[in-house]
Amino acid sequence: MSSRTDPSRVTPGRGDVVEAARWLDGRVVRTPLLRSPAIDRLAGARVLLKAENLQTGGSYKMRGGLYAVSRLAAAGYAGVVAQSTGNHAVAVALAARRHELAATVVLPVDAAPTKVARARAAGARVVLAGTTVEERLAVARRISDETGHPIVDAYDHPDVIAGQGSASLELIEEAERVGTPLDALVVPVGGGGGVAGACLAASGRPIEVYGVEPVGCDSLARSMAAGRPTPVEPVPTIADGLRPSCVGELPFAVLRTRLRGVVRVDDEEIAEAFRLLLMELKVLAEPSAAAGLAGALHLGADGGPRALGAGLSRPGGDGGRRQRTVGVVLTGGNVEAKLVARLAVSTRIETEVAA
Amino acid sequence: MSSRTDPSRVTPGRGDVVEAARWLDGRVVRTPLLRSPAIDRLAGARVLLKAENLQTGGSYKMRGGLYAVSRLAAAGYAGVVAQSTGNHAVAVALAARRHELAATVVLPVDAAPTKVARARAAGARVVLAGTTVEERLAVARRISDETGHPIVDAYDHPDVIAGQGSASLELIEEAERVGTPLDALVVPVGGGGGVAGACLAASGRPIEVYGVEPVGCDSLARSMAAGRPTPVEPVPTIADGLRPSCVGELPFAVLRTRLRGVVRVDDEEIAEAFRLLLMELKVLAEPSAAAGLAGALHLGADGGPRALGAGLSRPGGDGGRRQRTVGVVLTGGNVEAKLVARLAVSTRIETEVAA
Repeated sequence: MSSRTDPSRVTPGRGDVVEAARWLDGRVVRTPLLRSPAIDRLAGARVLLKAENLQTGGSYKMRGGLYAVSRLAAAGYAGVVAQSTGNHAVAVALAARRHELAATVVLPVDAAPTKVARARAAGARVVLAGTTVEERLAVARRISDETGHPIVDAYDHPDVIAGQGSASLELIEEAERVGTPLDALVVPVGGGGGVAGACLAASGRPIEVYGVEPVGCDSLARSMAAGRPTPVEPVPTIADGLRPSCVGELPFAVLRTRLRGVVRVDDEEIAEAFRLLLMELKVLAEPSAAAGLAGALHLGADGGPRALGAGLSRPGGDGGRRQRTVGVVLTGGNVEAKLVARLAVSTRIETEVAA
Repeated sequence: MSSRTDPSRVTPGRGDVVEAARWLDGRVVRTPLLRSPAIDRLAGARVLLKAENLQTGGSYKMRGGLYAVSRLAAAGYAGVVAQSTGNHAVAVALAARRHELAATVVLPVDAAPTKVARARAAGARVVLAGTTVEERLAVARRISDETGHPIVDAYDHPDVIAGQGSASLELIEEAERVGTPLDALVVPVGGGGGVAGACLAASGRPIEVYGVEPVGCDSLARSMAAGRPTPVEPVPTIADGLRPSCVGELPFAVLRTRLRGVVRVDDEEIAEAFRLLLMELKVLAEPSAAAGLAGALHLGADGGPRALGAGLSRPGGDGGRRQRTVGVVLTGGNVEAKLVARLAVSTRIETEVAA
């Protein structure tokens, strides 16, 4: 698993993110930074949202997927295999089509229908298998063995981590360019690839990086406490993209020394953040992306009972302290219309997702 | 009414839009151009959407409002009065607060509650009066007479036209910068200020400018046919911002010789465009803004029975013809959560707006 000679098992560094960002420039959408006065007020900080929901394929997974697949295409492979809860599968399918490779993607039987439809529309063969990452991985490995097509892991892969990190690097550099460098950077956590990429992108700068996990899907928080990757039995959450049972080994190798903290948010906080993004910022984020803002607001409220990190800012009480700037990677926007309708009108939600 | 000595009655020219754009640069959000492959396919053209729903105040009205109010502040006025269905009122309220002027805004009794709330939150005195523009104008004139504060008309004002035109100018110039200059520019029409500004912004370039009106709220189409401003009795529409009973005199003076055509769209087309913007582009547009995309799609289908202009492009059937590029000003995003929920899940809608 951790052979030094297998390039897919080498822990990536900051230079890999810089290289991925340079390669992806012009090949993916340079998504804008968005702001809302209402969100700034609620956060008690200047919040810069990197709108990767506007990315090709509807999520920042396009970055890692395209970068990894392009390298496999250059290496001569005729096809690729991927498993994910949806966005990584869509990204790999789109990337494979660009490179004229075959793509097989394995999604859970309870995947968001819009993600299944998008993967199919991109020309991938879609296989539905089980509900857990272990079930999907077993199927993906069998297909890979049968076809000889390598697996592009959704987060436990250096090129995927580097590619995802390019979103954070753009956010960090754009914030500097407009004169408000980041004090903190907040990224939602599924398998940890995006937040690991964020840590690499931020390294060398005084930026605190936080991960955000749904309550009960907190493998990273437990892993940080235990000092090693620690699985959980994920509980139901509207953040369907944040349900892997365990943080990846490569992401964890990056995160264990670099991550400032993990924030746990519940579905009500995620739903409220979703509504703020929709009605105030005017963009559609999927709940897994809204979790990032929910985490920033949670921290902004000076650390609730579930916050592990220090508060992002302390509104009031400390006089002339400089307003802090918080970056949030708005990771994606692929969400069911029915869920949009439900979340738009109510922040009191019942989780209907099967475990 | 049309005295040459009253600066608020002088027909603006292209130079006024350029000057407004220069002044507004850095004072309003430089909103991004967004694209969606799904929308391109449906339109049979490259569609560039200028996301003014991400503008301060939630609409492009901020441009004209801020530009006009700043000039009145410089002229020494202590307050301003405005009437609108909502977005112009919000813009004037925010602009007045920036300049520390008093603001009184007159909205219809059936205004979208979110627009009323936003105007109040910006510190304006809100007066609700009637449902027609004539009723609101009468109240606004009385308040102006009593207070000595000038009226900032929502469209019949050269600074407002010039300010609104700056959105189109940014769209035109950015499209050129990225190597896809516009062939056509589509703007929804209420009183005609935005589309008049678009015509001025486009002048000197081979860009066809189209206005879009809801069926039954087609004062501009009738005015173009009659050769003079021609009022209508507006019918109910979900596009609450496109209900003025008559195109403004100044906008019409610009439009009569420069506009390529007017497209009429019905509420179903608007709802479908709203859903596309939300689920494919991942942004929240208000129905009045979605009408612009609906118009572009209507034209893109090679001119339906209601299209007055030539088709924007002819998908299929003409071989290697160059793909056309169509700009759409996505004018705003202030919409009720309940309407979002309703439109997100169905394109078959019942109009519930009172006439």
